[in-house]
Parts: sequence; C-alpha cells; structure tokens
Amino acid sequence: MTTNQPLIPLSQAKAPYFLGVDVGGTNIKIGLVDNGGKTLAFKEIETLEPDGPQAAVARMADTCRGLCAAAGLDFAKIARIGLGTPGSMDIARGLLIEPPNHPHWHHFPIRDALEKATGHKVSFANDANAAAFGEFWIGTGEKHASMVLLTLGTGVGGGIIVDGHLINGVNSFGSECGHVIVDSSPKARLCVWGGGRGHLEAYASASAVSAITIEGLQAGANSSLQAAYKSGEKISARRVYEAAEGGDKFALDIIDSTAVYLAIGITTMVHMVDPGLVVLGGAMDFGGHNSKVGMRFLNKIRSEFKELTFSNVAEGTTIDFATLGGDAGYLGAAGIARDDYLKLGLR
Amino acid sequence: MTTNQPLIPLSQAKAPYFLGVDVGGTNIKIGLVDNGGKTLAFKEIETLEPDGPQAAVARMADTCRGLCAAAGLDFAKIARIGLGTPGSMDIARGLLIEPPNHPHWHHFPIRDALEKATGHKVSFANDANAAAFGEFWIGTGEKHASMVLLTLGTGVGGGIIVDGHLINGVNSFGSECGHVIVDSSPKARLCVWGGGRGHLEAYASASAVSAITIEGLQAGANSSLQAAYKSGEKISARRVYEAAEGGDKFALDIIDSTAVYLAIGITTMVHMVDPGLVVLGGAMDFGGHNSKVGMRFLNKIRSEFKELTFSNVAEGTTIDFATLGGDAGYLGAAGIARDDYLKLGLR
Repeated sequence: MTTNQPLIPLSQAKAPYFLGVDVGGTNIKIGLVDNGGKTLAFKEIETLEPDGPQAAVARMADTCRGLCAAAGLDFAKIARIGLGTPGSMDIARGLLIEPPNHPHWHHFPIRDALEKATGHKVSFANDANAAAFGEFWIGTGEKHASMVLLTLGTGVGGGIIVDGHLINGVNSFGSECGHVIVDSSPKARLCVWGGGRGHLEAYASASAVSAITIEGLQAGANSSLQAAYKSGEKISARRVYEAAEGGDKFALDIIDSTAVYLAIGITTMVHMVDPGLVVLGGAMDFGGHNSKVGMRFLNKIRSEFKELTFSNVAEGTTIDFATLGGDAGYLGAAGIARDDYLKLGLR
Repeated sequence: MTTNQPLIPLSQAKAPYFLGVDVGGTNIKIGLVDNGGKTLAFKEIETLEPDGPQAAVARMADTCRGLCAAAGLDFAKIARIGLGTPGSMDIARGLLIEPPNHPHWHHFPIRDALEKATGHKVSFANDANAAAFGEFWIGTGEKHASMVLLTLGTGVGGGIIVDGHLINGVNSFGSECGHVIVDSSPKARLCVWGGGRGHLEAYASASAVSAITIEGLQAGANSSLQAAYKSGEKISARRVYEAAEGGDKFALDIIDSTAVYLAIGITTMVHMVDPGLVVLGGAMDFGGHNSKVGMRFLNKIRSEFKELTFSNVAEGTTIDFATLGGDAGYLGAAGIARDDYLKLGLR
C-alpha cells in the first residue's frame, strides 16, 4: 500500500520538515511531510503487534531514517515527529493504556520510546484526532477555522478542532464523537465497547449497519440480500452498499436510517461546538461523492440535520465527505507535530 | 440588587483593570474588576428595553465611568471592557441579531456602540458563555483547564471552555448545551424555541419542570401540589422544589427524572469535550449544596452519569454546582476582556 498523495522532491519542499506516524492494528503508515503538508516520502510497514511495542518503535525509527535518506534530507533536520495511535491512552503522559487491537502493547510509554529511538521530540495524539487534524490542515477543512470529523469505520471515531485547537480532553477522551448518545430509550442499541447504550457508534458504524441489516433479514425483510444471507455469506456494510447500488429498497432504507442517526448526532455536536463544517471520513461512505448511493446518504444527513437544527445554523454549516482517505492519519500526525513546533517556537 | 462579591479597595487591587457588563432583559449588571477577579465596584441598572439600545449603551457608559470614579480609578486606566448579551448574536461582528427578550434591540451593533461611548475596546460574548467563563476564571472551575457550565433557568444555557479557550462557534451558536438532543423518539418534547425536538432544554429547564409537573397533575398524580394546582396557583419549578422539600414523592420523582435527562446530556457533552469538570449554575438548583433535595438532585446526576459513561471517564470527571450565582455574568465578561487583553498583549 502506498499513499494517494503526490510525492514532491526535496527541491520543491518547504522547511521545516516533519514525520507523521499513524499506528494501526495491522499496518503503520509513515510519511515525511513538509511545512505545507506535501509528502516527500512514504512507507507502510507491518505493525507485527505480537512482537511488542519496543520492536515496533525500533522499526518506526528505522523507517523514519529511511524516508529521510530516500528524500535526501538529513535526519537531524526533522523539526518534530507526530505519532497517532488508537486509544485508550494517556496523551499528556505519552502512554498507551489498553488499546483493544494492541493486546501486547498495554501500558507502554510509546511517546518517550519513540523520542529515545529517534532523538526527536514527539507529539502524541489519538489516531482519529490525528486524522481529523489532517483533514483540517490540508483536506476538506483546509479553509476552515473549526471542524468536526466523524470517521465511519468498524466503529465511529471523531476529531473536533475549535479555532485551530484539537480537543484531546482532560482524560484523553475528547472528540469521542462515536459515543454521543443518539437514542436514550430503554430499547436503544448497546455500544460494542460495553456499558454505553444508544451511542452513535451503535447505529452508524460499519459493524452496526451489518448487525442491523442481519436483524432485518432474520425478521424476514424482502431483500436481494436474503439469498446471500441464507447461503451463509457475510453481510457487511459493503455488501449493504452493493445491494443499495442495485436498487434494493431494504438496503436503501438501512442507509437512510443510518443517515438519520448521524444527523441526530451531528445536530448535538453542532449545537455544542458550532464548527461550521462537519466532515465524514472512514471506509463506510457508501461510495462517497462518486456514487448515487453515497450522495443519497450525504443528502439525507444534510436534510435531516436541516430539520433538526435552527435555520441560521443550518445555513452556516457544511456537511461533506473527507478527501484524504487513509492518508489523513499520517498527514494529521505530521500536522500536529508542526502545530506544536510552531506554538513552542512562539514562546 | 448588589453583588455577592466582597468589594476591595483600589489599594488592594491589582492592575490591569477591567469592566464587565452583563445585559439581561430586566437589568444590567456592571462591575469594575481587577486582574485577579476581585470586584472594586458594582452597580445594577435597569435595562429599560423599550427605550432602545442606544439609550442603554449611554447609561452603561455612564455607569462604567461612575464605578471608576467611586473606586478612585482614572477611567482611562481601564484596559478593556467585556460585554455579555443574550443571543441571537453575531459575535465576530459585534451585533445583536434577534434576542427574544430585547425586541427593540434587534440588529444593533452593540459592541461598536459601547466602544464609541466609552473610548475603550470591548470584548463581546454570549451571556451564558460569559457566565461560564466567570465560573471558569474564579468560580468552581478556578483550578481546571477545561469546563462545561450548564445554566438551569427559564431555559438551559451553557458555556464550554477547552484548554482555556471559550467555544463561541462559527455561527455564534457554540456552547448551546441546552440544544443537545437527549430524546430522539418521535414523542420527544418540543424545544420552546420551535423546531427542535428532544433538546435538553425541553426536559431540564425551569419551564420544562413546570410543564412536566402540570402534565402529571392533570393526569391525576397523587401529590401535595394537586390542591395548589386546582386552586389556580402557578406551579413553578420553585414550587416543585418546595413540595419535594416537604417529602412529596411525585415532586421528588420529577426532580429525579430531570437529573436523568441532565445525565444523558452531560454524558454526550463529556464524550465530546472531556472537560474533567461539569458545573451546574442558574436558579434551578433545587436548593443546591445547602439542601437535601439539591444534593439528591446532584447525586442522582452523578450516579446516572457514572452508569452512562466509561469508568475512567467517570473517575476523571467532577460534576458540581456553580459558586458565583448571578455574579458569574459580569465577572466572566470582565474575564473575557482580560483574556483578550492578555492574548493581544502577546502579539
């Protein structure tokens, strides 16, 4: 896998330079990024989670050095490194706590380990917050002062930026937009992380769409998906999207209903931070801008939001898809490093 | 009416000095405040809304001069003035839009008018946001970096401060915590401002508590309030509190249910901004810290929140009553002026 960003040569790049590291459960994406958000070099390496975090940190540091060498940049010229990882975490102390997809990495001081391995200062962030910062810096949010990003994937992540400032939270639980309550009834769906009831994630994540679809099929819904389901095929959100593209009414209804819950959550978020821009990222975009179903999904969210909010707020709020795709994480991590570097430089 | 803040003499005050102006529908509170948040002089004047905003601005400016004279401070020594008004408003442009309790003040450029009348720079804020900033600066939030304030009064207002930064919003609709959706069912109560369904304000404001109580009494609830209701007495939230103090089970249930909706809203707010501190201000505190009913209300909110959130977030979040009462608005306005003054001073 590579980046979708065009790579620029060092001769066209602007100092200072940053490295962005985006740690996932399977892969780690690392990019060398200039002051304008342009990528000079990129590499994706395997996480190899069971080998433990110290080994991974050593390979991250090697990759960082390799990217600089490939771009012809002295590694000492790196101004700062940004590191995004999945929660749970303690951002202020630079610790992983208990990230569910990294069982061998629990309670590891990853920020300090990467600082030691590279000799550079590291800015530490939640991966979804880093992705939000990427979209804010050089993606859909480029011309905005504030933004909310919702990442619709296996779960629902999020990142909130207010007047240029990323909301990390006092307990490193800021911007957890997937845990906004959109259904307070006793029958509300349970959050996959246990405990929470009626969270947005239980309605608008790919896992939720899959679960809701299967429940409907089990209840006898009239759908082209019935045959697939009965034959034991996995009914993923992707499969629901494909059925909807084929005109399946049941699948379209599921997508509409997902849009309604997203609109409820977005209304609440907008009434709290009034960002002017809400961006939908992540894999579950039902085809996005290039698909009839994706645009129906987006327009349903927009029209429901308009119903739920006040007219001047509706007029002053844009809802749109993200543009950076899987690159948002490493770009945002680099952007956070840049932001910290510039702030510290002012002191 | 006066302030509950002890007044200090100029000899004990610390420069720079600020004036805080808190505009309400009936009265305008103005305080002369030092760099540490101490009040040197205070006056409450009538709004005289029908006389129009220009006349009120002239009286505000006169009062500002008078307070300085009373404290023995040269008016020219004021560093900046803070002005809080009820919305709707355009904060960036310094305009009132259509504040419902100020029908003769619509579309008035109040910030620039006050600057012209005083010769000082004016920081402009929403009144609830100003109150939040007051509590954050020198009230319950004094030792915190972030805070959410909910003001429970006729409506539910709010103010959100993240890492010292007040969320005003791109459309001047930031921190409108009363419009967080806490019930998305089709039967949800309607927001008094029209349009919105299931907003926190429709469940946890004094007007909502009164309306919900009356509905219960009409449905035949067994309560000491029945006699009062049937005799035509007004069943205010205050009256519900008094009945609860007397042990009325129906009234206590209403207060418990109010706490449940507040906990739902607070959970959503905490999952978005993770402030570490949520403060309940406004007149509807059911007696606050000094009352058994008030503490039952607070503890019910706390226990429900604990059920609804994640254990580490519950541990890292304090929910408590505000401490500044009706002084929060003018103190916060002065605090916002101070904040802007200090920020601008760094440039």
